[in-house]
Amino acid sequence: MKKLNELQDIIVNGVSQLNYPARPAELYEPISYILSIGGKRLRPALVLLACDMFGGDVNAAIKPALAIEVFHNFTLMHDDIMDNAPLRRGKTTVHEKWNSNIAILSGDVMMVEANKLIMQVDDRILRTVMNVFNETAQGVCEGQQFDMNFEQDNSVTIDEYIDMIRLKTAVLLGGALKIGALIGGADAQNAENIYQFGVNLGIAFQLQDDILDVYGDPAKFGKQVGGDIISNKKTFLLIKAIELAEGKESSDLYSLIDAKNFNPAEKVEAVKTLYNNLQVKQHAEDTMNTYAEKAFEALDSITIGADHKQYLREFADGLMVRDY
Amino acid sequence: MKKLNELQDIIVNGVSQLNYPARPAELYEPISYILSIGGKRLRPALVLLACDMFGGDVNAAIKPALAIEVFHNFTLMHDDIMDNAPLRRGKTTVHEKWNSNIAILSGDVMMVEANKLIMQVDDRILRTVMNVFNETAQGVCEGQQFDMNFEQDNSVTIDEYIDMIRLKTAVLLGGALKIGALIGGADAQNAENIYQFGVNLGIAFQLQDDILDVYGDPAKFGKQVGGDIISNKKTFLLIKAIELAEGKESSDLYSLIDAKNFNPAEKVEAVKTLYNNLQVKQHAEDTMNTYAEKAFEALDSITIGADHKQYLREFADGLMVRDY
Repeated sequence: MKKLNELQDIIVNGVSQLNYPARPAELYEPISYILSIGGKRLRPALVLLACDMFGGDVNAAIKPALAIEVFHNFTLMHDDIMDNAPLRRGKTTVHEKWNSNIAILSGDVMMVEANKLIMQVDDRILRTVMNVFNETAQGVCEGQQFDMNFEQDNSVTIDEYIDMIRLKTAVLLGGALKIGALIGGADAQNAENIYQFGVNLGIAFQLQDDILDVYGDPAKFGKQVGGDIISNKKTFLLIKAIELAEGKESSDLYSLIDAKNFNPAEKVEAVKTLYNNLQVKQHAEDTMNTYAEKAFEALDSITIGADHKQYLREFADGLMVRDY
Repeated sequence: MKKLNELQDIIVNGVSQLNYPARPAELYEPISYILSIGGKRLRPALVLLACDMFGGDVNAAIKPALAIEVFHNFTLMHDDIMDNAPLRRGKTTVHEKWNSNIAILSGDVMMVEANKLIMQVDDRILRTVMNVFNETAQGVCEGQQFDMNFEQDNSVTIDEYIDMIRLKTAVLLGGALKIGALIGGADAQNAENIYQFGVNLGIAFQLQDDILDVYGDPAKFGKQVGGDIISNKKTFLLIKAIELAEGKESSDLYSLIDAKNFNPAEKVEAVKTLYNNLQVKQHAEDTMNTYAEKAFEALDSITIGADHKQYLREFADGLMVRDY
């Protein structure tokens, strides 16, 4: 079996070979641009990894893997318009570099390109793969809508939050693994189990990200520590804190959320102190561990040799940092 | 065979039975809303008509026909954002009724819904139908981008314009007919010929629309006569006039185009006078007739009984008004 970084290299090479028509330039240049910005290419590499795990030919999975990457970048292009984001991975976003109309339409045609790529599988599994892809795509759209709704809603529950991150982030990991497994020859039960592994791991990973944003080591964490607190992002930690806080703690928390003028470092410290008092980090870790365990249980149920599962276990271990 | 209006009724009924999840409401309500605004449902009815022509079961074509209608309305939802349009068929557009972010994301999920519907064909033709659908969708996106580019470009040629309307409008008519024909059991050659019929008829129809906007009977024409002139829309007539005008006629035309303050009725009359002097209506009619003839030639080459082709001929005759 190939290692994850080898598979990522195959994807990097595959992305560089994606060619689009020259005209209209405004439609196709933004696609090449957003794909060139990079990222770890983890999702498409997971398609290849799952295919390889079940004994399939990795080459047969490259085009569908690129479909996952093109689809993912289409959602980023449209999300960046909706979030009014100036930067993506340190580079100017498409709607800023060109304009919103171009970002809308380039994104639309990326979805078509993703559809063309995902179809490049055997007739035997074409319908099944397309069904997984469409369900995944629909879930990601639903997740983004819930995420936008939650910005204005202080009554979001933990269950609603978990469902949102499941849709927005986790189903695409599950879908990528399931599609790779189907290409590799997995039966329906194994394909479903690797999907469950991906979805539950994705939820655990997002919860870890929520924790790291507050408690991470600034030297190791890629983003600004405390960023979620500064922007009042509805994370597991904030939702749990709103749920648990009573009396003065509750009014203090709302004052911090509602403050228009504040010193960012002071706000981060004050909210963190409330989080500590309410033990929301412990709650988040417990929930994260529950989902990580569900993921590993699903992995255990897959009926292939332990040596083949080892690659996925290593991938999961790499994602879940144990010390922060 | 069923008549076109019977097939339109089947589509109206089919659209009314499309159901979407209740949540998130912001994602799915705009889909039901834009589909409820109506329209003639011609494109999906053409899927059924082509299926029927080749002896297929019309019921087997309903879901793919609805895919064409959902896809078409997805493009309208996104086009309306890009064109900043307040109204669509007299009703508030989605981005005005909700907001642009909701119109972007609802449109995205409509594309997924269209993909799910178009897949509901026999395995035998699944890949072929998906290929036609994806090519059509890509063409429509390209056409919209060219159309936006042309707004700022006074050097557009007639060939570029014809290519733009082919992509933006005509390929979807061709694609709808081809998909219907494939479902009905047409062979590859007949499917290609009905596609060519649809594309060429679509181009002729759009050229007729350009002519009617200036020369149509206000009592018969659905839109404001002269609207294209007032908004400097790059139609066949304007592009041809820019190409043919010389000396004072050219400078007069550019003055009319560049004028910021003008009396609309006077501008329409002045531009129309220039059009008459340059005989651009005659050029447009010649080109329209050339494409209509190409359409009927393609129809003639289809190897089925004349009685079956008659329905499509009547449809085309209905589209192309001879007196205006």
